[in-house]
Amino acid sequence: MSKTQPARGMRDFLPADVRRREYVIGVIREVYERYGFEPLETPAVENIETLLGKYGEEGNQLIFKILKRGEHEQTGEADLALRYDLTVPLARVIANNRGTLPKFFKRYQIQPVWRADRPARGRFREFYQCDIDVVGTHSMLVEALLCAAAGEALAELGFQQFTIRLNHRQILAGILNAAGILGDKHASALVALDKLDKLGRNGVYKELTDRGIAEEASNKLLTFFENLSSLESEVRISVDGSIESEREELNKLVLSRLAEFIEEDDEIGNSGIAELRLILKYAKASGAGARIKIDPSLARGLSYYTGAIMEISVPDLSGSLGGGGRYDNLIGMFLKEGIPACGFSLGLERIIVVMTEREMFPRELVEAPAEVMILGWFDSQYEDENRILDSLALANRLRRKKMRVDVYPEPADMDKQFNYARKQGYPIIIQINQEDYREGKCVVKDMRTKTRQEITRAEVESVVLKMFGKESDT
Amino acid sequence: MSKTQPARGMRDFLPADVRRREYVIGVIREVYERYGFEPLETPAVENIETLLGKYGEEGNQLIFKILKRGEHEQTGEADLALRYDLTVPLARVIANNRGTLPKFFKRYQIQPVWRADRPARGRFREFYQCDIDVVGTHSMLVEALLCAAAGEALAELGFQQFTIRLNHRQILAGILNAAGILGDKHASALVALDKLDKLGRNGVYKELTDRGIAEEASNKLLTFFENLSSLESEVRISVDGSIESEREELNKLVLSRLAEFIEEDDEIGNSGIAELRLILKYAKASGAGARIKIDPSLARGLSYYTGAIMEISVPDLSGSLGGGGRYDNLIGMFLKEGIPACGFSLGLERIIVVMTEREMFPRELVEAPAEVMILGWFDSQYEDENRILDSLALANRLRRKKMRVDVYPEPADMDKQFNYARKQGYPIIIQINQEDYREGKCVVKDMRTKTRQEITRAEVESVVLKMFGKESDT
Repeated sequence: MSKTQPARGMRDFLPADVRRREYVIGVIREVYERYGFEPLETPAVENIETLLGKYGEEGNQLIFKILKRGEHEQTGEADLALRYDLTVPLARVIANNRGTLPKFFKRYQIQPVWRADRPARGRFREFYQCDIDVVGTHSMLVEALLCAAAGEALAELGFQQFTIRLNHRQILAGILNAAGILGDKHASALVALDKLDKLGRNGVYKELTDRGIAEEASNKLLTFFENLSSLESEVRISVDGSIESEREELNKLVLSRLAEFIEEDDEIGNSGIAELRLILKYAKASGAGARIKIDPSLARGLSYYTGAIMEISVPDLSGSLGGGGRYDNLIGMFLKEGIPACGFSLGLERIIVVMTEREMFPRELVEAPAEVMILGWFDSQYEDENRILDSLALANRLRRKKMRVDVYPEPADMDKQFNYARKQGYPIIIQINQEDYREGKCVVKDMRTKTRQEITRAEVESVVLKMFGKESDT
Repeated sequence: MSKTQPARGMRDFLPADVRRREYVIGVIREVYERYGFEPLETPAVENIETLLGKYGEEGNQLIFKILKRGEHEQTGEADLALRYDLTVPLARVIANNRGTLPKFFKRYQIQPVWRADRPARGRFREFYQCDIDVVGTHSMLVEALLCAAAGEALAELGFQQFTIRLNHRQILAGILNAAGILGDKHASALVALDKLDKLGRNGVYKELTDRGIAEEASNKLLTFFENLSSLESEVRISVDGSIESEREELNKLVLSRLAEFIEEDDEIGNSGIAELRLILKYAKASGAGARIKIDPSLARGLSYYTGAIMEISVPDLSGSLGGGGRYDNLIGMFLKEGIPACGFSLGLERIIVVMTEREMFPRELVEAPAEVMILGWFDSQYEDENRILDSLALANRLRRKKMRVDVYPEPADMDKQFNYARKQGYPIIIQINQEDYREGKCVVKDMRTKTRQEITRAEVESVVLKMFGKESDT
């Protein structure tokens, strides 16, 4: 027998899975559209040179490469590859459609990407990315818009207590400068600093000094962060108001600490502070103020960010539900020019895992193949055409009312039919036995409330619609 | 400069394209759900042995094969491949989920497939298939259901005059037998017969005799089809009623001609006739009767069909919008057992081409990035925070009403902003100039009706909602 599992690290989505995924994608899409984003789709397959060299040495290794066809197949040469992310394709589309796309191009893209990573719990080789990006302006309106849109999408999915952590690459540089860490050590220091949550002060101190950063500088840096983290409890005591005013107060305090710590003549660091101040104001006006928390320890791994960076965290969940930032040097890669851009990516697979674990899906989603099952065959032997034609016509009438309807498809005893329908979880089962048929009646069973009604055939539509809380318009 | 086109035979879908595709997919999905089909999704990538040998020698050549990763990359060996159709993955899923899937599994699957075909007009290397299949029963209810569901999907998309051509493999065999063509020549004769539309009687006669079929048998066969085609004009004269009754009459006549022509002791041929009779009755009760036309010349290329076959044609369009049939020996391929199945596939790419050419998309689909654009910057020099905060708050209010709203993102002269918004086609443009801002007003322009209203800020939601024909619920 052949192997019938999906390929390693890939997944089949059975109906209940697809319904969950479609629900989440539908909500995200609807919110993104409301914020003025437009859909873009690119092919799964790209020319290999479009992708190679764009994701570093490790990325190159993880790209699925496609053999040349025909006689070239023997050479083992690859000329195509599977999409690795949605950002490089966006850059290619921008370059290829200059002049036709709007100057400010706001696109969302929700499509799978493929990475030959070692599969692990929650890590797949085919997974969806949900990206929004705004291309074409340096305006901080964009950062605020991304925070508002991504936050709103999560809120509509039912997430409540999440935080959008916000920082700025130039603030990070300013902090490291102020601590006395030289520019050539910044990247290395950020890798260590990124582990502050996980390793604590002593662990990061060791890692910093191991990386050749002076003890004095390491201490100054870590003391700054230690003082920052004590701010939170101070604010909680002093402000007794809404979460929004508490968070606003905290953000104000953190920004003023940053302004004190970063040197006055550090133009870059101070412009980072000014940008975050502006983003906070814009986000507040956009309704996202209460969700944002300035977090100067947020580093984010990707080296291509050039300005603000953000990440969404949920209490009791390590890792993030999404993240993004400004990257002004990447989108122009195919045009060899700088094009300002800022993007945010929601982690669809992770969102679905968390929503499943926390039972956040609407109850009506995990449902039967259809809303109504009609059982109209007489017995297991005899195919009575007229009777089944009657069932089909009834199904047709209900479908005209936009109901989702099934008909038991072959002759079987009524008990067998009923047991099948019950097992599949149809909420409404309509039974037409021999006597019902003769008398022009049927029995409608609402399996959710365990009630039954014997009604005439003319009443079926209105009775069934009512069971789903819908009005009949006839 | 790098190449920025998509890979050969692949397409980028810009926002207007995606909206068209999503519209079509949405309608098809909604109809399929109403007929009790459930969604299935499988990975783009399959183990190579799952696909190889399933599509014949030509198919094998057209499969995109993926190189092994890591050190194996040098060997040129492929271990994975891109999905070539949706039927083999369905068979794999059925085998892999035996016991958890319903006995009667009705699934739809709308996903891309990849074939390394030579690209041509309308032929792509990445294209979507839209399949419905019912697995697990021999009942003719299924054939009728597929005709009803696929027909309804096309009708909801706006197709009106299409025909579902219906035939049966066993009737074809019966006809060929009755003409005196031996079983070993059937496949070859069907290839020739399939060209009757294109080549006419003389062309097909030549092809039949070239293929070694006796002149007498060829003549008998072609005369039968000639007589059949004259039936249509006879019916049109004799029946003056609805299209439905005309078609019903024609189908009845064609079936009786078949019953006369096919030999009485030809059990296989006659069981084909009985099955079509049943399908017609079931389809009529399901509301699809008027769309079906028995067409004994329909052959369909795929050799795996075992019973009824169908194809949807549209007047003035060569080729079909979709087709399908019963194939009882394929779905069990991974289980080495027969599992009855019947399926239908709509040609999404072709549907979209025809709908675009015939302007069948709803007008509101081909639209701007959002419904409303707010222009709130003062001039190109000065970033007045308070003013733009005011615009953002207004955008937020409208988004709470489910409106799709954009805000011009950076400082610019009002004229420049307005020209941009007009060019992008936003139906509603809200302008807040300096005086408006001071007086708490704004100007709302409906670009579709070329009207403008000067209103207070409090009125904005109700005025804009009204412009879209929606009620304000506040």
